[in-house]
Amino acid sequence: MNDKNRLFRTTRSTDPEVQESPIHFLKSLSTSENLFFIRNHFPYPTLNSKISLRIYGEVYKPLVFHFEHFKQMKSKSLKVMLECAGNKRSKFEPRVYGEQWENGAISQGTWRGITLNELFKYTGIKSNVQEVVFEGYDFGERPDGKHASFIRSLPISKALHSDTIIAYEYNGSPLSFKRGGPLRLIVPQWYAMASVKWLKNIYLVEKPFSGPFQTDDYVYYPNKTNKDNAFPVTTVNVNTTIQQPLNFSKLGVGEHEIKGISWSGKGKIVEVAVSINDSEWISADLKKNSQGYTWTPWSYKWKVKHKGHYSIRAKATDSTGSTQPFRAYWNQKGYGYNAIDTIYINIE
Amino acid sequence: MNDKNRLFRTTRSTDPEVQESPIHFLKSLSTSENLFFIRNHFPYPTLNSKISLRIYGEVYKPLVFHFEHFKQMKSKSLKVMLECAGNKRSKFEPRVYGEQWENGAISQGTWRGITLNELFKYTGIKSNVQEVVFEGYDFGERPDGKHASFIRSLPISKALHSDTIIAYEYNGSPLSFKRGGPLRLIVPQWYAMASVKWLKNIYLVEKPFSGPFQTDDYVYYPNKTNKDNAFPVTTVNVNTTIQQPLNFSKLGVGEHEIKGISWSGKGKIVEVAVSINDSEWISADLKKNSQGYTWTPWSYKWKVKHKGHYSIRAKATDSTGSTQPFRAYWNQKGYGYNAIDTIYINIE
Repeated sequence: MNDKNRLFRTTRSTDPEVQESPIHFLKSLSTSENLFFIRNHFPYPTLNSKISLRIYGEVYKPLVFHFEHFKQMKSKSLKVMLECAGNKRSKFEPRVYGEQWENGAISQGTWRGITLNELFKYTGIKSNVQEVVFEGYDFGERPDGKHASFIRSLPISKALHSDTIIAYEYNGSPLSFKRGGPLRLIVPQWYAMASVKWLKNIYLVEKPFSGPFQTDDYVYYPNKTNKDNAFPVTTVNVNTTIQQPLNFSKLGVGEHEIKGISWSGKGKIVEVAVSINDSEWISADLKKNSQGYTWTPWSYKWKVKHKGHYSIRAKATDSTGSTQPFRAYWNQKGYGYNAIDTIYINIE
Repeated sequence: MNDKNRLFRTTRSTDPEVQESPIHFLKSLSTSENLFFIRNHFPYPTLNSKISLRIYGEVYKPLVFHFEHFKQMKSKSLKVMLECAGNKRSKFEPRVYGEQWENGAISQGTWRGITLNELFKYTGIKSNVQEVVFEGYDFGERPDGKHASFIRSLPISKALHSDTIIAYEYNGSPLSFKRGGPLRLIVPQWYAMASVKWLKNIYLVEKPFSGPFQTDDYVYYPNKTNKDNAFPVTTVNVNTTIQQPLNFSKLGVGEHEIKGISWSGKGKIVEVAVSINDSEWISADLKKNSQGYTWTPWSYKWKVKHKGHYSIRAKATDSTGSTQPFRAYWNQKGYGYNAIDTIYINIE
């Protein structure tokens, strides 16, 4: 049988299309285009064959760029992981509403594009700019009945970061429509709602932008019954997914490889520790990390002599000292779940 | 965008291959071949190009049939649903080990094949026969380290039922290898472990067959710590899956169609009732049922005026009076889950 036929994304919604990556079975450090997770907020937009990107607002010279302009500018290539802010939402207790992602709202690969710095060389930037606003071609009706386009902003410092790019290639091929092509923002280290697809407009503003995807969704609301103490979703939390074995699977006595991936938007992964049945934490072997903003694969050799039920926990620590909590930080909309990952295994 | 690209099976395991059908998004009463769930116990077997099926044991004339013989015999066509005995296993509380199926270990379509009755005309049957044993070409190592082939038996009465067939076509095409072709047993009304794939041998025995897939797996063990009061998994329980809306989704005020499917191995579905926030049970509209052993689609128009959290429950009753329990019958290996289906919706 052909192995290529064996991996599929998990369909979570068809309208709009939402699909999960089969993360437990991915071996490559680069997610193939057809297995990359999909999270749309609206139906797919209709694009003209000749796509344009307008830059305006607090610039000296508003401009409209066409796709061919980008291919003539200086480009850079970056390995970047994207994780949906709702990844693992289904694990929150109490449960929260929204897409019931398991572990697969995360994928990574190599993006080629141009920096915002490069673009702004043509338009200039006024000194009063606070934020850069990115509007996608996608729009539609939200669950509450309101109509909106998908629009998000970045602080000017993040927008001008030398690794924030407007991508037009993924893994060496033109960025496909379903990936957000022809032009998509890629914001390393932030949750993926920041990486706006189907870029249509970029405008620079002198005060904080507000909009449903900026100041209503993608906000942490830590209280159950009100919106006090809210703060925006930005950087990816330090996190781990045990890929193999699968949760609640049955194995025999002997040696088993526990494998997983860990990542953080704040820094490099410096340690992953594993604990069997809540005994001491033992360091796993970190695979040599690839360059860029990617997850770190790790493995741990587990020798098990006796039949019975086992818990296996894994937690990562990054170079800033951030580590995973035993219990995730609960919030109304279910963002940023990053509790220590735990699986249960029966040895038969 | 091409709609054909939007539905995928969910990969639950790659070795052996196990995949779930996207049951929440299926609209057709006939599951297309590429969306039919897959539950293998072992790696795919290697088959000769010239497949044969041997019939022996308590028969008057043991025979070997080749595939072309089947095409010359009188065939029948039947619409049959297959449901894995472990469908919905992930919902058991306390959790149980094994494949963590959600709702998609169920699919259906039209099978063409010949009855066992027809086959046994050629071999005869001795009067002392109690069971008919079906062996597939698939074999391998079980989690406990023991090696086995996939072998299951049927009581002679079920084997001789006029709708128990050896199928060689699915939805009008030759039965594909991944579906168990070229020859697969189809046992309507029983959980799908009975519908042995890649048929190799059929032998008739004068006493009950025992084997790991007959008397160890596919047995209900209702006690947590021992194997007392065990009984075999056979007929499909009356059951319901709410297809739309999805659990924990967000909707607006207004009218929503609640859609689902109900089925039973014991009889026809005669009623499906829906309860909102545990108020009175109201009958849903049953769609005209298709012939054969298939699920019954139903729908219910839900008018909701107020924002807030809602529970929606659905339960089916079949023509024998069997209905779904509030809490599923817990058993060690997690078979036959059929609790009243419940989803939670937030109206925004």
